[in-house]
Amino acid sequence: MSNLIITIGRQFGSGGRQIGRRLAEELGIDFYDRALITAAAKKSGFSEELFEMMDKRATNSLLYSLSMFGGSGVNGMSLTDQLYLTQANLIREFADKGSCVIVGRCADHILREYPNRFDLFISAPIEDRIRRIQSSPDREFEGNKSPQSTLEKMDKQRATYYNYYTGKVWGKADHYDLCINAGRLGIDKSVELILNFVNGLKE
Amino acid sequence: MSNLIITIGRQFGSGGRQIGRRLAEELGIDFYDRALITAAAKKSGFSEELFEMMDKRATNSLLYSLSMFGGSGVNGMSLTDQLYLTQANLIREFADKGSCVIVGRCADHILREYPNRFDLFISAPIEDRIRRIQSSPDREFEGNKSPQSTLEKMDKQRATYYNYYTGKVWGKADHYDLCINAGRLGIDKSVELILNFVNGLKE
Repeated sequence: MSNLIITIGRQFGSGGRQIGRRLAEELGIDFYDRALITAAAKKSGFSEELFEMMDKRATNSLLYSLSMFGGSGVNGMSLTDQLYLTQANLIREFADKGSCVIVGRCADHILREYPNRFDLFISAPIEDRIRRIQSSPDREFEGNKSPQSTLEKMDKQRATYYNYYTGKVWGKADHYDLCINAGRLGIDKSVELILNFVNGLKE
Repeated sequence: MSNLIITIGRQFGSGGRQIGRRLAEELGIDFYDRALITAAAKKSGFSEELFEMMDKRATNSLLYSLSMFGGSGVNGMSLTDQLYLTQANLIREFADKGSCVIVGRCADHILREYPNRFDLFISAPIEDRIRRIQSSPDREFEGNKSPQSTLEKMDKQRATYYNYYTGKVWGKADHYDLCINAGRLGIDKSVELILNFVNGLKE
């Protein structure tokens, strides 16, 4: 059996990253998200600051940053495209190395040819998401924005990035094997349910 | 505790109706789908043939049928709108009467104020869906169309109807509590997983 690959797309503040980490722990497999970026930065020679900056850009339009960085790279590729390709190569290396959970970064699309893959999408009610981002110690928010507009902006950014690089629609149920509103069960029971699904997969 | 209401949206041929029927059996609650139309037809005085015809219309555009039927009804409402409202009233009556499973008909939106509600969306891989519609005895298909184009047309019709009457996007993961690719687990295990979710709901 090939490596088990669990990819997770998630609304901002939904608890998707936390669920991913818990799944990896329960299954005893690797977990990748922000660590992925750092690894990519080191490996590719991009400056880590550039990745961080692009990642945190709360712009409404990826196209803006695409044009901003467009044409300034080597091989006629924009820096954004180079970054995407670098991350895609790393994601494939991780998936080849062993079973793992990968959060975000279009991993479902990048690994679409990997047969033993399980694609998750996590959502949550807006109140839960606001509570989560407000209590999160490692998040930075724009002080003059409401939590709701921050969430909307981040989701829009994720959707634009995903749609641009995959040609699919972020958060459309039929792209995924399982989509959960984590607010209905809470994190623990959501993790349990996902494990039941993964363990029940048809052979 | 108020009545448990399970609503199911589903891709055509995904097995969503079968899953709904099984859930209702397992939970010992009522099940509504095509029966709903018949009941609506009898109650409202619409001819049953009209409902059947509109239901089976494999048109690419609901707007076409809206304009076709537009203005010909009473109270300035199109027949299509009257049909929708009649069905919406019936759906509320069913939900008030007792716990139930309701397939399709924008029930998730119509019952959005009902607190003890659980919204499901069922998808399946295209090969599974083709196999299901080809082996289904009670389906009529256009002889000159490929199964895949029939599926696409039916899904487009469902999406247009849903989007028009709800102002939301059909099949978007965050509208639902749980979305399952039924092809990964099969019908039996999907039903089991959904029951686990429903039984685990936070009180």
